[in-house]
Amino acid sequence: MLGRVEAIDDVAELMAGIGLRARAAAQPLSIASPEQKMTALIAMADAVDRHAAEILQANGQDMANGEKTGMAASLLDRLKLDAARIASISESIRTIAALKDPVGDIIAEWDRPNGLHIERVRTPLGVIGVIYESRPNVTADAGALCLKSGNAVILRGGSDSVHSSRAIHAALIEGLEAAGLPKDAIQLIPVTDRAAVGEMLKGLNGNLDVIIPRGGKSLVARVQAEARVPVFAHLEGLCHVYVDASADLEMARRIIVNAKMRRTGVCGSAETLLLDRLIAPVRLLPLLEDLHAAGCEIRGDQGVIALFAEAKPATEEDWSTEYLDAIISVKLVDGIGDAIGHINRYSSHHTEAVIAEDIHVVERFFNEIDSAILLHNASTQFADGGEFGMGAEIGIATGKMHARGPVGVEQLTSFKYRVRGNGQTRP
Amino acid sequence: MLGRVEAIDDVAELMAGIGLRARAAAQPLSIASPEQKMTALIAMADAVDRHAAEILQANGQDMANGEKTGMAASLLDRLKLDAARIASISESIRTIAALKDPVGDIIAEWDRPNGLHIERVRTPLGVIGVIYESRPNVTADAGALCLKSGNAVILRGGSDSVHSSRAIHAALIEGLEAAGLPKDAIQLIPVTDRAAVGEMLKGLNGNLDVIIPRGGKSLVARVQAEARVPVFAHLEGLCHVYVDASADLEMARRIIVNAKMRRTGVCGSAETLLLDRLIAPVRLLPLLEDLHAAGCEIRGDQGVIALFAEAKPATEEDWSTEYLDAIISVKLVDGIGDAIGHINRYSSHHTEAVIAEDIHVVERFFNEIDSAILLHNASTQFADGGEFGMGAEIGIATGKMHARGPVGVEQLTSFKYRVRGNGQTRP
Repeated sequence: MLGRVEAIDDVAELMAGIGLRARAAAQPLSIASPEQKMTALIAMADAVDRHAAEILQANGQDMANGEKTGMAASLLDRLKLDAARIASISESIRTIAALKDPVGDIIAEWDRPNGLHIERVRTPLGVIGVIYESRPNVTADAGALCLKSGNAVILRGGSDSVHSSRAIHAALIEGLEAAGLPKDAIQLIPVTDRAAVGEMLKGLNGNLDVIIPRGGKSLVARVQAEARVPVFAHLEGLCHVYVDASADLEMARRIIVNAKMRRTGVCGSAETLLLDRLIAPVRLLPLLEDLHAAGCEIRGDQGVIALFAEAKPATEEDWSTEYLDAIISVKLVDGIGDAIGHINRYSSHHTEAVIAEDIHVVERFFNEIDSAILLHNASTQFADGGEFGMGAEIGIATGKMHARGPVGVEQLTSFKYRVRGNGQTRP
Repeated sequence: MLGRVEAIDDVAELMAGIGLRARAAAQPLSIASPEQKMTALIAMADAVDRHAAEILQANGQDMANGEKTGMAASLLDRLKLDAARIASISESIRTIAALKDPVGDIIAEWDRPNGLHIERVRTPLGVIGVIYESRPNVTADAGALCLKSGNAVILRGGSDSVHSSRAIHAALIEGLEAAGLPKDAIQLIPVTDRAAVGEMLKGLNGNLDVIIPRGGKSLVARVQAEARVPVFAHLEGLCHVYVDASADLEMARRIIVNAKMRRTGVCGSAETLLLDRLIAPVRLLPLLEDLHAAGCEIRGDQGVIALFAEAKPATEEDWSTEYLDAIISVKLVDGIGDAIGHINRYSSHHTEAVIAEDIHVVERFFNEIDSAILLHNASTQFADGGEFGMGAEIGIATGKMHARGPVGVEQLTSFKYRVRGNGQTRP
């Protein structure tokens, strides 16, 4: 189906063409009706189900290649599709289809003394580039979210999942065509050459409005460092839980175990526990017992080690390490002020939780920490667009420009002003 | 007061220090109370008034230098301060002081089925860099707007206005000190070396969150091309007025003259008039008469020239020229579809107006054109934060990321999520 691309020059030319076609598709897409987009999404989900066998076969090729090249078991697991995973891909598209269409939404409106009526309404961003690694479901999720928000998208999947992504992409195109939408609205880059990523980072001659990297830290860091266009990215989730002297001990125990151990590999899992030094002598042990019993390694500062013999000594590096594993660093702090100081210094500005009954402590935590998500008396593992009621998300942004926190369909839009008058001129 | 900086290396070091101090000031500023910021702003305005004589004297030095180096009369007029202009600087600071404080504002809030209460609240962006040219009042406006929105700011004024800017900056610092806020909250770069701009474009080691260029096209283009941090910029205002066959002729005449001629040098002034070909034989003459009588040069396409003898022929270049002068390009189009096509091709996505009574024409104009501001039956010269009721603005953004249209205090903020629970853990 796809011709071979022979040289770097060809990649630049190929990518320039993809950019031009995406920009051309963005215009009809931006004015497509909610019904038309919904029709396309439902047809996409149906096509994924209908072509399940072909998608599984393509995935089998990727799995065979992965096994041959010695891919790690955890990566092979991410790559693998089966009937249930394909059903969850189509289900996810149907969920996105059912979301409220954000385009044209009136965010604010007001009247001026001279009679002008001003509306601020949501518009698509334009062309979105998504660069991701081995999870084939991102092809469907990103394609569907961008379509719902009226944006054209250029998908650059990982070379490990190239066959799976192409098979899923073919189903998305069937959906676009069924609804009479341009098939260039969702383009999958047909080569796995790294130069294609380089061209995206340069912005495709102004035809790419934002890049969303989804993958490991090295991919995200490269995109952030080199991109000449805006990036919605999440570098890491170094999330903290602070247990105040006023905390309800039983609640704190439940929340800490959940925040750390429910799933250790997600960005919202807790990596550092801060405990008010005042209550450490009586509260530290019960707080750490459950974690330890659940198989979590404890790395503590001197105060922690003095009270909990099983703890290993934490080094300076531990305070800035996202383990994504059953390990937690634990530090005693001198109250809320010290906790805030530690978090503002080491946090990746993703998600932090405070366990406290003292409302003044909570308000200081909420006001003085500048992270995307701050929680009171709840687990950090709620850091997720679905849990926020925003529907599907394309990731959690830790930057502060435009999108922050879960990036759902609303965050994939911009806005414009519509001003209605009856002949007003400016004096 | 300020030592000489001898070499480029010193500039890099100087700028790194400015970045570090701005980042340090941003934290106390982000949690300063609305009252404290208002106190500072009022004290700044008072200090500007109190030091009017010194500011005028400093401005006299800049004016003398400008005259000596042969600065154009229009630039000298921009640079010149007098008692009235100083009064308008302090008045503008007082207006900003009286605006609603955006920080901590709850933009949205909702409950989840599990009892979590989610709030999305406004937060400052952090550190803002403003790069501007010869207008000394920008020093005060930018300093005050950034303070009101809880941001630290690094100001890089033009070398032509260096003495005026320093004198105004000294008054701003008095205001900060009167309110107990860190004086590093508003820093004016003490050198006029262009290398300082280069350091800002590189982002000051992560200590600069956004750059706002205010000045001519070459400055803005350089910032957009080279900045490694987000930019809120307005490259140009190539604004269109489309007069539909359904337009009220008298209204169209009034609006066109106002949109073009009220002030020709502002970004919201109209540069191109599009007229429905159907009505051209009877409507073109009355529409152009007033413009012509007001001294506006008319450059038209063939159809326009055939009907209006005084028009000069427009070249292809005219459709993409922001005259900022008493010149207008005029084109006959085949209805709303053709008008939309022309605007989407040539517009700078700033502001466009439609004069029409047919509601379907208006809706197409509003939906299918992707510019920051779209007006119906009103002059393009309303494209201004003050006219929008947003108070003072730092510029009009023509980009689509984060800020779009007038950039006032709300657009200088980001947001975070505050989630209140009572022990929720994620299943």
